[in-house]
Amino acid sequence: MLLNCMGLELSDAFLRVSKALSNKVTNPILEGIKISAEDNELTLSATDTDLSIEKKIKADVKVEGETVVPGKFITEFVKKLSNTDIELEVNEKNQLLIRYDGNESVIQCYNPVEYPGFRKLKTDEWFGISQKDLKTLISKTIFSVAMDDSRPILKGVLFDIDQKEISAVALDGYRLARVKKKSSANVKKQIVVPTRSLNEISKLLDDSDEVINVYIDSNAIMIDNIDTKIISRLLEGDFVNYKQIIPMNYETFVIVNKVQFEDALERVSLLSKVGQNNFVKFDIKENSLLLTSNSEIGNIKEKISAVLNGKDVTIAFNPRFILESLKASSDEFVKLCLNTASNPCVIVPTEGDEFLYLILPVRMFG
Amino acid sequence: MLLNCMGLELSDAFLRVSKALSNKVTNPILEGIKISAEDNELTLSATDTDLSIEKKIKADVKVEGETVVPGKFITEFVKKLSNTDIELEVNEKNQLLIRYDGNESVIQCYNPVEYPGFRKLKTDEWFGISQKDLKTLISKTIFSVAMDDSRPILKGVLFDIDQKEISAVALDGYRLARVKKKSSANVKKQIVVPTRSLNEISKLLDDSDEVINVYIDSNAIMIDNIDTKIISRLLEGDFVNYKQIIPMNYETFVIVNKVQFEDALERVSLLSKVGQNNFVKFDIKENSLLLTSNSEIGNIKEKISAVLNGKDVTIAFNPRFILESLKASSDEFVKLCLNTASNPCVIVPTEGDEFLYLILPVRMFG
Repeated sequence: MLLNCMGLELSDAFLRVSKALSNKVTNPILEGIKISAEDNELTLSATDTDLSIEKKIKADVKVEGETVVPGKFITEFVKKLSNTDIELEVNEKNQLLIRYDGNESVIQCYNPVEYPGFRKLKTDEWFGISQKDLKTLISKTIFSVAMDDSRPILKGVLFDIDQKEISAVALDGYRLARVKKKSSANVKKQIVVPTRSLNEISKLLDDSDEVINVYIDSNAIMIDNIDTKIISRLLEGDFVNYKQIIPMNYETFVIVNKVQFEDALERVSLLSKVGQNNFVKFDIKENSLLLTSNSEIGNIKEKISAVLNGKDVTIAFNPRFILESLKASSDEFVKLCLNTASNPCVIVPTEGDEFLYLILPVRMFG
Repeated sequence: MLLNCMGLELSDAFLRVSKALSNKVTNPILEGIKISAEDNELTLSATDTDLSIEKKIKADVKVEGETVVPGKFITEFVKKLSNTDIELEVNEKNQLLIRYDGNESVIQCYNPVEYPGFRKLKTDEWFGISQKDLKTLISKTIFSVAMDDSRPILKGVLFDIDQKEISAVALDGYRLARVKKKSSANVKKQIVVPTRSLNEISKLLDDSDEVINVYIDSNAIMIDNIDTKIISRLLEGDFVNYKQIIPMNYETFVIVNKVQFEDALERVSLLSKVGQNNFVKFDIKENSLLLTSNSEIGNIKEKISAVLNGKDVTIAFNPRFILESLKASSDEFVKLCLNTASNPCVIVPTEGDEFLYLILPVRMFG
């Protein structure tokens, strides 16, 4: 292999694919990044078998070839060469020679024959969605994914796909997030994508309306966006039947200004952190929402105006779950839907059903 | 106590003085911030007995008084009220009532009688220096302070003061940093200021030529800058006789471009991190400086041009110590002064003696 390329492009490509390197060292060769030169293109790829990332950059290829370079080292090293032209050569000892500014460094590589091939996915099932919308589906649900290992399937986001619409759903034992976006698909299917893969997919997306296709194989998905390809394994098992969790009817509806609600709740929650009782009490009556928290060092009360429709209710929540849901919404006003003090609160837009956040209440003592 | 003040000023003041709160809870009242209202000023103060910070803000004082508020909580709470006017009242139960936007929160306070008084310092010994220069003295030496506890006196920066000049000196077992600046003083003295206090003093300073006075008492210093007063305990004991450590003569002088040297050394040092030998070899000869590092995964060589004056030399260093010294210098070129492979390297400006960084070499095996 012998080629020339731009330092900045090479550095960017190594940084991107290095995200698929394994953090746990199980198979040493998976600590490597494979580089292949062919047809005036250099292809970089890395995988930890769950997540695989491949990126192509332009290169002036004089001799074709391939090798596997120590991944973390080469990423750090090339990052510090982004201003220069770089010549890469692989010699007969499978060493990578890196030449720049009259210097030459030598890195011993792994045998590329031992590197696992990038799996081929079937592409006959797919959904298409704008980059912006896919990014939103991820960012507005991912914070509700379960953190503990008790139910592995909940450590990913469910994509509930039909021909016209996708719902992204994440839930742990305390709350649920559901966001809907229009899409097109040639299939009706539920898939669960691991959090780590979604973080990398999200970085690949911009805020444009350009539609990209996501291909679905039996246990993996693939996104192929211009010069970067990401393949992620899917989580296996049955996801919770989330539709059953969402109440059908409510007795109380409250509309509040989102920023006002968020600011007040943040202040009130400071005291709930100090005290033993990690909750904030909500008193909903007479077109106002009164938030209170008590601890041994004092009490905070904040009253915000609200449009109330239905019965008065007094209920308590862990403020973190409410705050995280509010932060994910960009609407000026939100609607809280409630029943009794032991039923969940559901936060939705004042119009439409683009997002839904459900939070279980906390039982108050005394 | 009853007063009104601006949320932003109050928030800024709590944030500033909270830096003197103790991280270790030894005496509960030291977790508090004392607030005193008098003469249309609110004075906030906090101390962990080593470091004390006091700040005054304007307030519309209706009833004078004082109390001690839970420090971390009030700082966090007021930070979230920076857009509003705030009314503070202390009632007969020593509770602080915080009123804003029609809301009222209640915080139980500590008894201000139990709060240790802010010590009075003698102000007859002092030195004067521009804010900019004091900031530089701190920032360009503090990274060389010893991290381990074996010699507590080395966990601070020595200020070697005479009537016309101050040298700031920090050293651990591997390197030494010395920076000189012009100043005026009515005393000739050596004092050692703890790192934590210097970090807070540094935040108080801007990049102006305005001269501020530092007052020196037997075991503390005080800076009184407009509305903020900082008092720091001094470290006790004898500092190393640092002048003895700096060589009188050198056999080799090398002038290099600082940025070029830094970039090359950063790349070469990446491999020294991977390998067992955490050093980079310097070969100085024929008007060039060749940097090399070797490990089981390969070797990196970087040659940079240099102006050599004196004998050739081959020597090795822990690259981190050299890099930290280079980062602290803002000159275009630096001069390295050397003797043999077992003597320290000294980095100085090409002209003058504003800074001096001394780094001990590493012994190479084989």
